[in-house]
Amino acid sequence: MTIRASIIGASGYVGGELARLLLFHPEVELAQVTSERLAGKPFTSTHPNLRGHTALQYVPMSKVEPCDVLFLALPHGEAASRIEQFAALAPRIVDCSADFRLRDPAAYERWYGTPHPAPAWLEKFTYGLPELNRTAIQAASYVSGVGCNATATNLALLPLVRAGLLDSARDVVVEVKVGSSEGGASSGDSSHHPERSHAVRSFAPVGHRHTAEVLQATGLEHVHLSITSVELVRGALATAHVFPGSAVAEKDLWRVYRSAYNSEPFVRIVRERQGNYRLPEPKILAGSNFAEVGFALDEASGRVVSICAIDKLMKGAAGTAVQCMNLMCGFDERAGLGFPGLHPV
Amino acid sequence: MTIRASIIGASGYVGGELARLLLFHPEVELAQVTSERLAGKPFTSTHPNLRGHTALQYVPMSKVEPCDVLFLALPHGEAASRIEQFAALAPRIVDCSADFRLRDPAAYERWYGTPHPAPAWLEKFTYGLPELNRTAIQAASYVSGVGCNATATNLALLPLVRAGLLDSARDVVVEVKVGSSEGGASSGDSSHHPERSHAVRSFAPVGHRHTAEVLQATGLEHVHLSITSVELVRGALATAHVFPGSAVAEKDLWRVYRSAYNSEPFVRIVRERQGNYRLPEPKILAGSNFAEVGFALDEASGRVVSICAIDKLMKGAAGTAVQCMNLMCGFDERAGLGFPGLHPV
Amino acid sequence: MTIRASIIGASGYVGGELARLLLFHPEVELAQVTSERLAGKPFTSTHPNLRGHTALQYVPMSKVEPCDVLFLALPHGEAASRIEQFAALAPRIVDCSADFRLRDPAAYERWYGTPHPAPAWLEKFTYGLPELNRTAIQAASYVSGVGCNATATNLALLPLVRAGLLDSARDVVVEVKVGSSEGGASSGDSSHHPERSHAVRSFAPVGHRHTAEVLQATGLEHVHLSITSVELVRGALATAHVFPGSAVAEKDLWRVYRSAYNSEPFVRIVRERQGNYRLPEPKILAGSNFAEVGFALDEASGRVVSICAIDKLMKGAAGTAVQCMNLMCGFDERAGLGFPGLHPV
Amino acid sequence: MTIRASIIGASGYVGGELARLLLFHPEVELAQVTSERLAGKPFTSTHPNLRGHTALQYVPMSKVEPCDVLFLALPHGEAASRIEQFAALAPRIVDCSADFRLRDPAAYERWYGTPHPAPAWLEKFTYGLPELNRTAIQAASYVSGVGCNATATNLALLPLVRAGLLDSARDVVVEVKVGSSEGGASSGDSSHHPERSHAVRSFAPVGHRHTAEVLQATGLEHVHLSITSVELVRGALATAHVFPGSAVAEKDLWRVYRSAYNSEPFVRIVRERQGNYRLPEPKILAGSNFAEVGFALDEASGRVVSICAIDKLMKGAAGTAVQCMNLMCGFDERAGLGFPGLHPV
Repeated sequence: MTIRASIIGASGYVGGELARLLLFHPEVELAQVTSERLAGKPFTSTHPNLRGHTALQYVPMSKVEPCDVLFLALPHGEAASRIEQFAALAPRIVDCSADFRLRDPAAYERWYGTPHPAPAWLEKFTYGLPELNRTAIQAASYVSGVGCNATATNLALLPLVRAGLLDSARDVVVEVKVGSSEGGASSGDSSHHPERSHAVRSFAPVGHRHTAEVLQATGLEHVHLSITSVELVRGALATAHVFPGSAVAEKDLWRVYRSAYNSEPFVRIVRERQGNYRLPEPKILAGSNFAEVGFALDEASGRVVSICAIDKLMKGAAGTAVQCMNLMCGFDERAGLGFPGLHPV
Repeated sequence: MTIRASIIGASGYVGGELARLLLFHPEVELAQVTSERLAGKPFTSTHPNLRGHTALQYVPMSKVEPCDVLFLALPHGEAASRIEQFAALAPRIVDCSADFRLRDPAAYERWYGTPHPAPAWLEKFTYGLPELNRTAIQAASYVSGVGCNATATNLALLPLVRAGLLDSARDVVVEVKVGSSEGGASSGDSSHHPERSHAVRSFAPVGHRHTAEVLQATGLEHVHLSITSVELVRGALATAHVFPGSAVAEKDLWRVYRSAYNSEPFVRIVRERQGNYRLPEPKILAGSNFAEVGFALDEASGRVVSICAIDKLMKGAAGTAVQCMNLMCGFDERAGLGFPGLHPV
Repeated sequence: MTIRASIIGASGYVGGELARLLLFHPEVELAQVTSERLAGKPFTSTHPNLRGHTALQYVPMSKVEPCDVLFLALPHGEAASRIEQFAALAPRIVDCSADFRLRDPAAYERWYGTPHPAPAWLEKFTYGLPELNRTAIQAASYVSGVGCNATATNLALLPLVRAGLLDSARDVVVEVKVGSSEGGASSGDSSHHPERSHAVRSFAPVGHRHTAEVLQATGLEHVHLSITSVELVRGALATAHVFPGSAVAEKDLWRVYRSAYNSEPFVRIVRERQGNYRLPEPKILAGSNFAEVGFALDEASGRVVSICAIDKLMKGAAGTAVQCMNLMCGFDERAGLGFPGLHPV
Repeated sequence: MTIRASIIGASGYVGGELARLLLFHPEVELAQVTSERLAGKPFTSTHPNLRGHTALQYVPMSKVEPCDVLFLALPHGEAASRIEQFAALAPRIVDCSADFRLRDPAAYERWYGTPHPAPAWLEKFTYGLPELNRTAIQAASYVSGVGCNATATNLALLPLVRAGLLDSARDVVVEVKVGSSEGGASSGDSSHHPERSHAVRSFAPVGHRHTAEVLQATGLEHVHLSITSVELVRGALATAHVFPGSAVAEKDLWRVYRSAYNSEPFVRIVRERQGNYRLPEPKILAGSNFAEVGFALDEASGRVVSICAIDKLMKGAAGTAVQCMNLMCGFDERAGLGFPGLHPV
């Protein structure tokens, strides 16, 4: 017996990917998809890859019926300001926005520049990164999605944090290279193809908001993010530069990464001796929920470079959201998420 | 109960896609994969997207065991010269090369420049385009794969041919825009990234061999192909310029295309009034077995532009090969081929 | 002694290229650049490649002073509706829009869907393609720019037309592959990077307006254009499929192309035996005013494929405009246009 | 009166760019270009953008005549092993390889894994970065070229180093994003387009040899480079993460960068408030000798992100080599290097 799931704010890229996953999910019926602007239009008018796979039409929010799980894929701020309304519709919610990611209202205000609209709800939400807190997600009714850049960074740092290799007071520099889906489905001057094509654009050299999620997830105090846009659509590659307090050997690092991820269903440790895919590569992850994590060690200086590749719309958003739903509903964690990625592409 | 399938010559791009499809196919166990050069190495050393999904290692041809279906993904010429050896291993063969696509040995010699190595086998093979001859494939033991450019062209032309709109004596010009997977997995000067990147290269303005398959499949006499390489990896878009003998109206064309494809499981007719995806677009088909077919009509001149988009490695090679296997083995034709493509990507 | 030139509507891509060429032109001083919206802002705020090369600021149209040559780079329709005003400012005008390209007001109305706003001016303008009518341009006061797709098509067809190889009644199919600068500097949904990136989009399979310029320039009656967008910014490649009335040999074609272009300063005939650049390639023409023209002959069918590559912003717009200015002013036709293009890029 | 310059090893990408610059240089005649493999073939067979601009043919090394300046663009190691031979041909040499970049033979051996073949020559060469040691280059007979990643990094770090803001003992992390021209003109598996296209490949996360040049040029001890390949051909963007010993304000940084670069003819300081080009962008520098340098300050943490964009074949190789020649020969330092780059592209 399948559950019924609906997507609020389904016209964007994350909404489209949620729908793609739910339409093929063995335990779920995709019940409704909303858009105020597009109400009455076919869902596939915005998601052409799904033509022939669904006859769903957009409905306005006012027509949404109660269901088992509600996915929120709204612009930041909208989930929080209407959370009571959404909670009345379903016992379980996965919110893909940034509204409920931070536990601390003060951190929210510092990074988002405005007091949280519904601070009492912050503690009801669980941060939806299964690799960080699977058990809590299994018990949760409300799960927040994850920031894409935060996810790539967190998955790169977590093995080292858990192994105690990182001194909280030490500087960690992380550079994330990202594709253009970062900006969402709305066009604008910065995404105009002649300008964005083949750009290497330092769009957030300092001050990116996902830093807050990284600090919260890792417990570190000095993580410094820079985000650079490159020619790519979905991928993100986080490169974290870490200086452990004491010398580590290659062998130690293998143990640390294996300990963190060997039983994770959606993390592949990648560190090969040869070939073009010796280290994590977002290129081959488009459409996949898998994250690749690997590392390099500079023995002379002791620097560890920890690297994570993801598809931002999948492991960085919709894929992880569905993975959380699987955990919340007691399904096989991997259900509906089998697509391994393509090579070449 | 699943069948056992093996892939001969599995290190290339078509071999990789066959494996991806078969590893997730509900009716198939991928038994063996061969490569002489890579024998003993993990299959994933050449197909990094499948890391974590299979522990298969390459075996040499000499170690291949009998199985239910054999897929051949060898360089052109090798399947024909050893076909007896392959036929001894399995009752059913799908050959992805060009060796058994043409029925007429004289046509083979004209287009490939050498007499066919095993002409007696030509009549045992069925041309593996389900949209053209599904019934024959269902009854076949031996099926040839299809040329990628030929498939895009054939799917664009078949509705018009079947409707009798094309005069066999009239010139049909077809231009196919293709990605770099066209050239296979072996590197060379023409695929060197600084040279191939953003090229618009007239690599076969005249004389492309797939023309022979188009003439055979359509029964036309004057189809003129040009193949132009563009910045893309997997996609192909065929644009066919056709001048029907008598005037046709938009409404007639809709009927013609619907009649040809409405019951086809892997063809989507695409002709929308608005948006970026009004006509077939290979960009959103990467990894998918779906072909998109659409048309435009110039009422002033009577020209019909018939357009088909595919993923060359899927509908143009491995996907159609698995679709043929499904037909040959009595499986659901769609089994293992559900992936709809990604948007955006 | 240099002349003074100003650019009306300089904030777009053609305006930017005009400025780049004029700033480095040995005979010209770039006097003023206009934009109503950006008046008072630095010219380089929209053309970042020129930072450090000019301190010009945008002025509104009302501040434009008389000068020797006025370049108009306005949206289509605006030049025609204010042509008297512009003519009062300078004795020589080069208009880059489509407003004055067609000689026949009826043709304008048929293709642009509205009567021409200033039909009496049509005969005062000369169509600004030097390879077509250099002598007329030398004597002209008013020159119209050229359509980028029309230019690529015209340069591909002119040698065959002049040699009398084309029967006016015969169908000629031309497919032009174009980059995203086609759409200009204004962003919109169709140019949003995640959608436009790696598209192979049939954006004008029939009915493209530049057809009118081709009919006028070639005197042919049945030229059928299709325009397909590909992953590229500036380039265009026109592939023309032509069936001469009688058989031609390779040698004849060489003579025809050499006769047409051997003394042209900005056309390179490209037809090599080997290498990646055997035929015209827009990739290596970015920033250059050179057009490459070449051909292939299918001896079996008699089809001639004539191919032309250009940079749409240069030979297809600003470059040819400056070439026309050179002719109008009696300068060396090549002045300021020496940049040969880059390889690789 | 022009000087005569020849290029040894001219078939690669750096050789091609040297030739493009020298063919249009007002003070230079390009005398000879060598390639053993291609002797007798037209120079343009490998550099198609120069077709029509030169009739030079490759000659073997044995045919090279004495000239005024010799440019060496050979594979690493070959310049050093035959330096006496080259020095006999010309009074001035600019070597684009890594052979003579390091002053200390021990450093050479540490980074290149082999003793230097001609250690006595190391002190005769001047490191050819004009922004670092213009005066020495003006007086030099022998100048080494610069590493492309080193140049982007050095230009990002030099203002801070000179201002004394960097503590030599402190860690500096630098990530360089680079295009595919990095690997040169020879094809191979790693540059095969289906693999390299849209890659975000951690090709040198640690241990890159250009680190040696950075340590030498900056006098720092702890600079940690990572090189990541992205979809791009010529560009490089270095992002340096620096933690000054004491707090700096935005205003201080402006002064530091202006002091370093305001009189540099080929460095543009880029730090705008709005638009897509607020910080350095290699996209608009293709073909140009200009470097863009800018910075961002994280006031909360004190981190300074210093950013430099270059065209690797120009400011990172051939362009700087010609700039050095201009200095060595007493020409205008900017001669032949005026091309500002293109927008959009």
